[in-house]
Order: sequence, then structure tokens, then C-alpha cells
Amino acid sequence: LSSRLPTVGTTIFTVMSRLAQECGAINLSQGFPDFNAEDVLFERAAHWMRAGHNQYAPMAGCLPLRERIAAKLDALYGAHYDVDTEITVTAGATQALFTAVAACVHPGDEVIVFEPVYDAYVPAIELAGGKAVRLRLAAPGYRPDWRALAAAITPRTRMIMINTPHNPTATVWHRADLDRLAALVRDTGIIIVADEVYEHIVFDGATHASCAAHPELAARSFIVSSFGKTYHITGWKVGYVAAPRALMAEFRKVHQFNVFTVNTPVQLALADYLADTSRHAELAAFYQAKRDFFRAGLAGSRFELLPSHGTYFQLARYEAISDLGDAAFCEYLTRDAGVAAIPVSAFFADGHDDKVVRFCFAKNEATLAAACEKLNAI
Amino acid sequence: LSSRLPTVGTTIFTVMSRLAQECGAINLSQGFPDFNAEDVLFERAAHWMRAGHNQYAPMAGCLPLRERIAAKLDALYGAHYDVDTEITVTAGATQALFTAVAACVHPGDEVIVFEPVYDAYVPAIELAGGKAVRLRLAAPGYRPDWRALAAAITPRTRMIMINTPHNPTATVWHRADLDRLAALVRDTGIIIVADEVYEHIVFDGATHASCAAHPELAARSFIVSSFGKTYHITGWKVGYVAAPRALMAEFRKVHQFNVFTVNTPVQLALADYLADTSRHAELAAFYQAKRDFFRAGLAGSRFELLPSHGTYFQLARYEAISDLGDAAFCEYLTRDAGVAAIPVSAFFADGHDDKVVRFCFAKNEATLAAACEKLNAI
Ligand SMILES: CSCCC(=O)C(=O)O
Ligand SMILES: CSCCC(=O)C(=O)O
Repeated sequence: LSSRLPTVGTTIFTVMSRLAQECGAINLSQGFPDFNAEDVLFERAAHWMRAGHNQYAPMAGCLPLRERIAAKLDALYGAHYDVDTEITVTAGATQALFTAVAACVHPGDEVIVFEPVYDAYVPAIELAGGKAVRLRLAAPGYRPDWRALAAAITPRTRMIMINTPHNPTATVWHRADLDRLAALVRDTGIIIVADEVYEHIVFDGATHASCAAHPELAARSFIVSSFGKTYHITGWKVGYVAAPRALMAEFRKVHQFNVFTVNTPVQLALADYLADTSRHAELAAFYQAKRDFFRAGLAGSRFELLPSHGTYFQLARYEAISDLGDAAFCEYLTRDAGVAAIPVSAFFADGHDDKVVRFCFAKNEATLAAACEKLNAI
Repeated sequence: LSSRLPTVGTTIFTVMSRLAQECGAINLSQGFPDFNAEDVLFERAAHWMRAGHNQYAPMAGCLPLRERIAAKLDALYGAHYDVDTEITVTAGATQALFTAVAACVHPGDEVIVFEPVYDAYVPAIELAGGKAVRLRLAAPGYRPDWRALAAAITPRTRMIMINTPHNPTATVWHRADLDRLAALVRDTGIIIVADEVYEHIVFDGATHASCAAHPELAARSFIVSSFGKTYHITGWKVGYVAAPRALMAEFRKVHQFNVFTVNTPVQLALADYLADTSRHAELAAFYQAKRDFFRAGLAGSRFELLPSHGTYFQLARYEAISDLGDAAFCEYLTRDAGVAAIPVSAFFADGHDDKVVRFCFAKNEATLAAACEKLNAI
């Protein structure tokens, strides 16, 4: 049995969550909240189930949900996506990313990604027969190197995958970054995949620079987002992708044979829930408070905290504490300090190690306080 | 923009369901029930949501559900699958099939399929860079031609995809068929993908011949099934795959980056629901009654009904009614007779037309009676 992905193991998120559970550690590794979503969302799901909406949704997703998504993209980004042909509901953002790559990357194509890179991207590229071209975001600022990007673009570049707010570094791109990207891809056929799952979680008064809000980029972009991240339901596995019609037509060719469609009553419940747009509007402040609480809790520790401009992650350097590589340090943290984190080297193909770990602060204050107590003690 | 799937359009199921809706026709095309599942299932889903089980499930699926699946495979087929390493919950059977192909088929590999072939198979093979080798099941018996299969196997054959009970022909394979398949693949490395989503819907006292029950085949097979088909919840998008550990390891490498995991509260609700195994045990009789009702209702029509040995589909020849090709005839049926059906030619790459249409009888008797009245009138 020869492997299609010989170098791939089990995703770091599964590895660390499993270890956290085995050790009874506080799990600040895999990114998910430890608090519940609102009951009204569950009531709506149960309502649609009882009302008999349990059969296949349309392949593109339930119309009321696509309408809400279109309205949001319009309200926030001034972007006009056609409900019928330019929006598709997906089984989470991961499935959207995987499917966009599968639908557009031909064998031999190059796809540019920025390292540290979310671990789902490169295997999707390689399964499609593409070649991942990795550009490094250098610690501690993790800013893109535009000169390196310009040099990396070749006639074989089919796609550039970007992610803002960025997991794991908690950096964000600004409008000027999108302008630079747009200038570099102008007059090429390069497709952009914009992973914007943390679009509502941008701190300190900044606004999210969405590719959807940048007409020149939007015309060549898949915009990917996640209800799991936005509404505290990572386990529901619902996200969406928006793209111009020609791109979406290719996306749907694959989507229909990959998952076909997404859970119907859950889509309808989300459509109801999205009627109140204050929910996503309040998200940044909600998580900023958690970020500040967590950072304050670690102020007396020997960790050096990097800035967190968005997402619900906090990077920390630990050189004052340990000489271990970050994977070994995360194992130590989990087993001995009782707090699980993600080693950022897991997001580099060559295991490049900035000696930085990632904590998830999408947790109740009690959880964060307990974690800080343990982290302060080492 | 060059397409990865240049010959693929929108799946026939979406096309026909959309047309049925536009025309206000009774929709016997896409396969799904028009009756609801039991309230207890919805109550369990709402329970797990309210109880806070809304974050990522383990990548392989929720343990209680995997345990139920393992128990079922043991009870029905005497098959022993390891809960941790040999069972994975998927976002429907479609995602299981797509992922198994993506994980195992290398560029240049040949994959044998039987035509008429479910429309998701070949695009999955082609996206993986494989070549679909089509063997025809000849109307009206739609039995496999073992000599043709033996001749089609080459050193490049990586996989054979089978489907029993078979959609769209409603034929079933028997143990002797599995024995012949086993003899042909013995001493090869060929992987079997066994699409058994209608495993519980086998009529007239026959028992389902599962690859899981055939140790020699099971050792090289992905067994795929669907809770959507079994529990009248096609819109929930939950299925599973069982396979020996080495195959499953490859499957999960792709699964984790395709969808990562499946809706958590829905998995937990299904785990509760599967405790009562009478539910799937009663399914064959339930659908056999519908089959018999539908066939009796068409006895006076000019359709010639083929046997339906399993699934919830009924094939019908219409040569006494029309000279049209089956696609045109289905459009006529939908627009003018008010009943939507699936043209079986949609399951052939070259549009081969046996002048046969497929009706779905997973409907309330009132729906079936109304459809029969319309079909009797033409
Ligand atoms: C799909 S599990 C990982 C969740 C996540 O996005 C993260 O922890 O970075
Ligand atoms: C995925 S929609 C098609 C449902 C089905 O299995 C069928 O109608 O054959």
C-alpha cells in the first residue's frame, strides 16, 4: 500500500488534544471555545428538525442562509455576491479550502503559501498534484516579504493562499497589504484563496481587511469563512465560500461529489441566528477582553508574549524557561505543567523552530486563570 | 480558467430536483424520503447541543457512535473492526467515497467501476489522476460480467468500486458474487470500495451480502454506509467508513484535511438512537411495503417495471409510451405528467440509453398514489 501523502502524520490538533485529555491538562492547544453557544440556536435547530427539514439541502446550501451570507458580505465589505451562483455553504472552512484547491490546482501547478502555514493547506495542494511554494513569515513580526513573493511568482503559479487574521501568528493584513498583493497578481491568472475564518476577531479598533472588500482581488478570490469560529460551534462544521461565478462553477463541480451538501436543519438554524448581526459585531470586543485577561494573567510569567492582533490565539516565546524545541516543550507543558499548547514548528514543513508556542484563549476566565496559575509556576 | 473536470456539469440529482420544484411536480427523482424521522432523534440532538457538546468531535468521530457502528458490524456481519483505528464517521457516504479514492488512487492508476455508475465515483477518480475503467451491467438484468472483469484487471488496477444494493438498478449482489470478486483479486493489491449505503434495504427475504462479512474481501475493503439512508435523514450528512487499519490510516490522512470531522451533537444523537437495533432491522419490510404499493399502483400503466431487489428505487421502461431518449422523457414526465424521475443514461459516461427511468419510492403512500395516478394517465 503506497501512500498518497507519505510524509503526513496525524494533524497536530488531534495529537495535542488527545495528549491533553490523557494527561488531564487544561487544553489551550486545538482552537475551540470551552463555553457554549446560545440556547436559541439549539432551539432553532430542533425546530427545523421537528418541522421535517431533514432531507438534502440544495447542493449550494439552503437559500435563507445564502441570503444572510450575501447580506453580510454586502454590509461589511460592500461586496455583491449573487446568492444563486456565487455563494456555497460548506462542511466547515476546511472543506471549503480543500475543495477550492482540488477544483483549481492542476498537476504541476505551483501554489504559494506563507509559513507558518495552517496544516491543512499543503496536503490539499499535494493531493491535487500541485507543488507548495513556501514563503516564510519571519518571527517575531511574521510580516510578508513582498520582494520574496514577487520573486516566487512564476508562470506555473496557479494560486496564492492567504490567511488573515492569521493562524497561528495572530497577525492581520491591512488594506495596504491587499493592495500590494493585488499589484503583484495583476495581469496574471492567479487565483487567491483567502482564509478569513477569524474575520470578526480583529482587535484594538482595527477593521478586517477582507479580500471581498477589495474589488480587484475579489474578482479572483475564494473568500472562506466559518460559522464554527464566529458562533462558538466549531463542532457543527458549517462554513462557506464566496467567489465570482466562474470560480464557483468549478468549486461546485467538486463540492457536489465531495460532500454534496451540508446538514439542513443546522443551516436553517444558522440562517435564523444570523438575522441578528449584533452577534458578530460584538465578537471582537468579546475576544479582546479574553486576550487582555490572558495576557495580564501571564504578565508575571517567564513567557514573552508576542502581539495578538486577531484570531483567538496568543503566541509566546519560552526561551527564558527552557532550551527544548517547541514540540518537546509543548509535551512538557502538557504533561508536567498541565497546560496543552501547539508547537508553532508544526506549521513549518522543515520543522523550523522559532521556539514559540500557541495558546488558545477562547476559554472561560476561570479556565484562563487556572492555566495562567500553572504557567506562572514554571 | 481551465477546468479540472471539463466534462462535468451539475449533478443530475440537483438538476432534476430543481426542475421538479420549478414545475411543481411530484419529486420521485433524487433519492430522499418525504416523511420525517422520529422526534426522539431530534430530542437527543437538542439535548447534546444544550449540554454543550458543540465543539470539534475527535477526528475519527465520536467514540459512542464508533462503538455502535462496530457493534452493528459485528452483530450483522460477524466483522470485528477496531473502534479506534478502523472506523471513521464521515460527512455522508459521498465524503467517505471521495476521500477513500483521494487517499488511495495515484495518478495513472486504473479504477474499475460498473456502469450504470453513481455519478460521484468517476469525478473522484479523475480528480485523483486515475483512470476509470467502466464495465457495463447490461439491461435488463444488470448482472456483472465476470469474464469482462477478469479481462479488465491489469497491473495498474488500484481499486474496484462496487455498490450493493445497487443504485440505480435496484439489483443486489449475493455471497457467490463476492466469492467471484474475491477470486479475481486474490494475489493482487487491489483495494475494494464497497458502497453499501442501502445495506438495510434488501427485499423478499434476501440478506445483504456485505463485504464486511467476507473476511477475504474485508481485508482489502473500505465499507461505506449512510445514516441518511437508514434513518430517513439524508439532510444530516452523516455516514461512516470501516476498513482495516492500514487502509484507514491512509483514509484519515486525507479526511483530517478535507472535513476534519463531522457535526458533534448529531453524532451523539445518532449514537443514542442506534442503541435500538430494531430500527434498522425493520427497514427492509418498511420499504418493501412501499415498493409493493408503488408497483401495484403502476400495474395498469404502460410502464414495464423491472425487478427491485433492494434500495428505494424502481426502474421502469417506457418504450410503450414514448420514443424519446430517457433524458428527454424525464423532462417530459416532470413538465407534462407532473412526476420527476431520473434518466438512467445519466449514470453512463457515453450517455448510453436503455430507455429506463428511475423512480424513488421512499415516499408516503399518498405521494406514491398521487404519482401513480399521474403515471397511469400517460
Ligand atoms: C480542525 S482542528 C484545529 C482548529 C484550529 O483551527 C486550530 O486549532 O488552529
Ligand atoms: C446526493 S443527492 C442523490 C441522492 C441519491 O443517492 C440518489 O438519488 O441516487
